[in-house]
Amino acid sequence: MNSELTKVPGKQEIINASAKIKDYIHRTPVLSSSLINDHFDCQIFFKCENFQKVGAFKSRGAVNTVLSLSKKQLENGVCTHSSGNHAQALARAAKLLNTKASIVMPKNAPNVKVAAVKQYGGEITFCEPNLQARESTLKKIILKTGSTEVHPYNDYRIICGQATAALELIEDIPDLQKIIAPVGGGGLLSGTALSTKYFAPKTKVIAAEPEMANDAFRSFYEGKFIPSKNPKTIADGLLTSLGTLTYPIILKHVDQIVTASEQSIIEAMQLIWERIKIIIEPSSAVPLATILENKIDVKGQKIGIIISGGNVDLAKLPWLK
Amino acid sequence: MNSELTKVPGKQEIINASAKIKDYIHRTPVLSSSLINDHFDCQIFFKCENFQKVGAFKSRGAVNTVLSLSKKQLENGVCTHSSGNHAQALARAAKLLNTKASIVMPKNAPNVKVAAVKQYGGEITFCEPNLQARESTLKKIILKTGSTEVHPYNDYRIICGQATAALELIEDIPDLQKIIAPVGGGGLLSGTALSTKYFAPKTKVIAAEPEMANDAFRSFYEGKFIPSKNPKTIADGLLTSLGTLTYPIILKHVDQIVTASEQSIIEAMQLIWERIKIIIEPSSAVPLATILENKIDVKGQKIGIIISGGNVDLAKLPWLK
Repeated sequence: MNSELTKVPGKQEIINASAKIKDYIHRTPVLSSSLINDHFDCQIFFKCENFQKVGAFKSRGAVNTVLSLSKKQLENGVCTHSSGNHAQALARAAKLLNTKASIVMPKNAPNVKVAAVKQYGGEITFCEPNLQARESTLKKIILKTGSTEVHPYNDYRIICGQATAALELIEDIPDLQKIIAPVGGGGLLSGTALSTKYFAPKTKVIAAEPEMANDAFRSFYEGKFIPSKNPKTIADGLLTSLGTLTYPIILKHVDQIVTASEQSIIEAMQLIWERIKIIIEPSSAVPLATILENKIDVKGQKIGIIISGGNVDLAKLPWLK
Repeated sequence: MNSELTKVPGKQEIINASAKIKDYIHRTPVLSSSLINDHFDCQIFFKCENFQKVGAFKSRGAVNTVLSLSKKQLENGVCTHSSGNHAQALARAAKLLNTKASIVMPKNAPNVKVAAVKQYGGEITFCEPNLQARESTLKKIILKTGSTEVHPYNDYRIICGQATAALELIEDIPDLQKIIAPVGGGGLLSGTALSTKYFAPKTKVIAAEPEMANDAFRSFYEGKFIPSKNPKTIADGLLTSLGTLTYPIILKHVDQIVTASEQSIIEAMQLIWERIKIIIEPSSAVPLATILENKIDVKGQKIGIIISGGNVDLAKLPWLK
């Protein structure tokens, strides 16, 4: 078992994770658009995890976690419940290490994500689209197979892996005033906050969340954990609520949480498609959506935004509804 | 006036152009997808000119040409007829050097391209969507303003500028077996062929053309210039026929021309969107479409593809028709 399971990842652990996963993931590019910069009167640097393996930052945490498993654990396989990107990432990580991944997915998961999990050899069990159904279905699988659960975000090894995205961004653009990451379960956000604290302590960390799934916003400002109840947002990667491990890291190291409306998320998504010429999923557009809504002071500043992923069903684009 | 006007650009002229335009354009990245590579059993390197300024390789030729104009020419402005990307590129290049660009556009040009030309300060005159109407409208503008025509492709300064894309690709990936470029008027293709001849003489140059606008294919294999008559293809950047300057270069230095059906172009476009997570326009998908149709032997080889641009009307995606 890995020591990272029991405590918040330290500076050296994130550096080690970055070296350990290096051969299994992409070092993704950082892109900018002069038109977007002119429009918002600032410099925005987009860390493009949509170009990551399986099309999302989730590959980082999944690879880091599977690489830390014992031989016996690998024999019994891994399992998880996930609305999509973590599922693909875990299926791929398992395949790389010749083990099996059992994936519980909500039955309303986008087709493109279901197909991708199958392509990486993951075995899918569908369930109702709520947390309770996911967890009970997963428990049955664990009882049957003895496989190791790899939680999408509430796991220090996952958080440590996700932290490597911000580490790379900080290496490429060392003097950012702010880094903005979207928040769902908080794996990316807590990892981003830790890396920023360790490697760029003067940089502020801001979380961007859909108004329609604002559990992190409420939990952060009310000081107690308030889970979302059946949230509905186009940003389908951000439906989950914070976890018991991610919430304390966020409370301690995140400077601000802001929200964006569904309309702004769609507008920001389209702006990024048109101007940067990259495919991003709605969840990735939430940080720019909060800037569109003037929720963050960016004027004259250097801003980093983590683009979380690019897995979109191209037959269902939100501006065509 | 620039000496490049009167003869085929040489090796040193392309090197000089590359240095001259460097501060005005992006050095675009070269991307790959392991899924696409596995699928076609080869390594494909996509030179991403969709990330270029104005979203297309056309910025290279336009900047190179405007930088070569005399002070007097700059005073009277520049003009052109173009279905889109060249128009944006020339408008931008003119703005950079504080001169005026008059643009003749077919009235069926995509909205997104019309809007972009306006954004860069270009003055648009619309005309019927055929070559005759474009040319007569342009002549009237030249008579009125004394501005210098910058042809979209039939100009050695333009060809020399477009050649810098392949030069960069060859610098990044020196041992390609083949480079595939789409062909419309032949500016990109003739530039690509020259750079490949000069900087990677062992690499084959292949042109990819829509079946529905196959004038280059026919002219190449029949040995005489056969223009397209009102061609219709989704690859709207490739509607034009070869020019008197591009055709001889292509005859001399291109190894093979292959065509692709409309359906393959759409399929290849969607494949690139889904797998590489980049926005490309239909014209850019034609090279991969010819590989989809097994028109080119790629097995086990290193293949370069020039992605010409990424200006798409996001409200009109071809797979949603």
